Amino acid sequence: MFIVDSDCHNYWCSATVLEPYMDGFFKDMFVRGEKTGPRGAFPHGHRPWFHPEGFSRHDVNPVEEDDNYALMKEKHLDKYNIDVAILTGDEPIEASTLANAHYANALCRAYNDYMIDYWLPKDSRFWGSIIVAPQDPKLAAEEIRRLGSHPRIVQVLVSHGAQRPYGDPFYHPIYEACAEMGLPFAMHLGGQGGVNSTPIGAGPSTFFWETHAILPQSAMTHMASLIAQGVFEKWPSLKVVIIECGVAWVPSVLWRLDANYKALRKETPWLKRLPSEYFKSNIRMSTQPLEQPENVQHLWATLEAMDGENTLLFASDYPHWDYDDVTKLHIPPAWREKVLGLNALDVYRRIPRPAAIAAE
Amino acid sequence: MFIVDSDCHNYWCSATVLEPYMDGFFKDMFVRGEKTGPRGAFPHGHRPWFHPEGFSRHDVNPVEEDDNYALMKEKHLDKYNIDVAILTGDEPIEASTLANAHYANALCRAYNDYMIDYWLPKDSRFWGSIIVAPQDPKLAAEEIRRLGSHPRIVQVLVSHGAQRPYGDPFYHPIYEACAEMGLPFAMHLGGQGGVNSTPIGAGPSTFFWETHAILPQSAMTHMASLIAQGVFEKWPSLKVVIIECGVAWVPSVLWRLDANYKALRKETPWLKRLPSEYFKSNIRMSTQPLEQPENVQHLWATLEAMDGENTLLFASDYPHWDYDDVTKLHIPPAWREKVLGLNALDVYRRIPRPAAIAAE
Repeated sequence: MFIVDSDCHNYWCSATVLEPYMDGFFKDMFVRGEKTGPRGAFPHGHRPWFHPEGFSRHDVNPVEEDDNYALMKEKHLDKYNIDVAILTGDEPIEASTLANAHYANALCRAYNDYMIDYWLPKDSRFWGSIIVAPQDPKLAAEEIRRLGSHPRIVQVLVSHGAQRPYGDPFYHPIYEACAEMGLPFAMHLGGQGGVNSTPIGAGPSTFFWETHAILPQSAMTHMASLIAQGVFEKWPSLKVVIIECGVAWVPSVLWRLDANYKALRKETPWLKRLPSEYFKSNIRMSTQPLEQPENVQHLWATLEAMDGENTLLFASDYPHWDYDDVTKLHIPPAWREKVLGLNALDVYRRIPRPAAIAAE
Repeated sequence: MFIVDSDCHNYWCSATVLEPYMDGFFKDMFVRGEKTGPRGAFPHGHRPWFHPEGFSRHDVNPVEEDDNYALMKEKHLDKYNIDVAILTGDEPIEASTLANAHYANALCRAYNDYMIDYWLPKDSRFWGSIIVAPQDPKLAAEEIRRLGSHPRIVQVLVSHGAQRPYGDPFYHPIYEACAEMGLPFAMHLGGQGGVNSTPIGAGPSTFFWETHAILPQSAMTHMASLIAQGVFEKWPSLKVVIIECGVAWVPSVLWRLDANYKALRKETPWLKRLPSEYFKSNIRMSTQPLEQPENVQHLWATLEAMDGENTLLFASDYPHWDYDDVTKLHIPPAWREKVLGLNALDVYRRIPRPAAIAAE
């Protein structure tokens, strides 16, 4: 089966890998200035919740930089016959937490150049995400246009932690640039410290396991906002990918959005369709971590209510603590071909459709 | 069928009804001081989202104070054969938004005395909620003990908008008092301005219909927090009622809480059961506004996953814009007797079980 992993983290051992890709004052600041830890740490505002086990699988222990790829190849790509891995970086999305958007943008630029230079040539299965710092949408749009025509770049990526809901017109220059380059806009769980708004209502909460369970709240806010603000009327072909934010909450939010829109649609006269219709045409959800009810039929009814057959994209989240391998994806068996691979081809348009599939 | 409405709003035309129940400086401040509008307004920090239709049904137009009861009797209680109406006030829960907790407490005390004096004697179907200002838990606990033994008081009520998640030990004096008086602790959608934390992640959002759809986020945070902080280990018989916050999101949150707890339970060694088990034994959800999917089977699978037969309480939300009457409660028919009435008797223990039901 053709398998696309839409959330494959290309780790580094040390953020010093970015140094050759920086210059001027921000290189000086990155090398000499304050960081979130000792040399090698990536500067970002940290969440107030600390993972009691750390984020990485304990069987993935790179010592040198090249181990990161070697381990990924051995424990993930080759082991599970992954055909396409969308690289999502790791710490760089945390640039969204910095007050200085110029510094955040410089870090993102350095990461993008490093990723294109170091990671993409390593493996023909790799396709890249441009990471941008959304706190200055004009700078972010410049970065999207600088690299967006690279043939192996397939999406623009930010953290789901943000200063305001992503439908806000403040962010529209980013979607303008995405639409121009034909790239989807993706948000990945993260960026919950620093300048970003509290990621959950009535927060902050206290423990990591408690908090991680409710972090999808920001994604709910972004989904509602992108739809209500008319982003998909302005850019009808724009796809938004929501990564690692859970999926089973989607129907409950769409049901409320649809009911409220029907009653109060005069607030947003630019919309032409129900919120759930914009979801189905424009938003895609990555599977990991897929919810795990006692009775899988309860999950499957939920996935059916969100047209999961067409809206879900398989993701492994390699090499994180709650990594899902391909064999553990408990979705309806008839959906596997689409969710594991084909749906991704409609989102990441630069990835060629394999000949075997085109012929089917 | 025996029907309990667990969210029936006793309106006033003007907050000046509270004046006879206040004294001293805070009466002076209430009469002469700044309010959220002209004389008759209730002082509170207002949400940044304004309802484009107003909150009330447009066919409920009280002119004099006594019209509020007359209209409720005509359009709701008598029309739908309601046996028990749990009065939930209306604006008073907004006292939670005030920076001055002493003033907030004085307003709640006045409301509680007014409610007991004016509303409870009007109709034998009425049972009351003590509203407290949670921003000073010690004052709130005093108020619970002052009135908690009144034979027709059946719960303690706050807004779901709050300064921090309700499991926080900061709030435990409230649960101590609830447990002592044998009363459930209820939170109702509201209290989203002033000192309270943003009610949604990555907020604020923009439009009313958009925002209303995602306001349950704070309830998710409170549910996770009450469970994780061990409130139901400290007070095993405490019931928590979550009112008007939607229900279909509950399984998605419980599935993530259970999965994370299984992996990282060492963070909270005081817990003895899965989060979903605490939910089923200690938390109850009011139905209104019940989600309305195109295919009701999708909703019913969701409700089954949260043991809705035993965890749901019927609510009308009279006289609000999105009022649900008894006939429109689209739950599995076999559950109606429990959800419409019997489940409430296990929560509101002072309401006598009708003889006809006891005999069944």
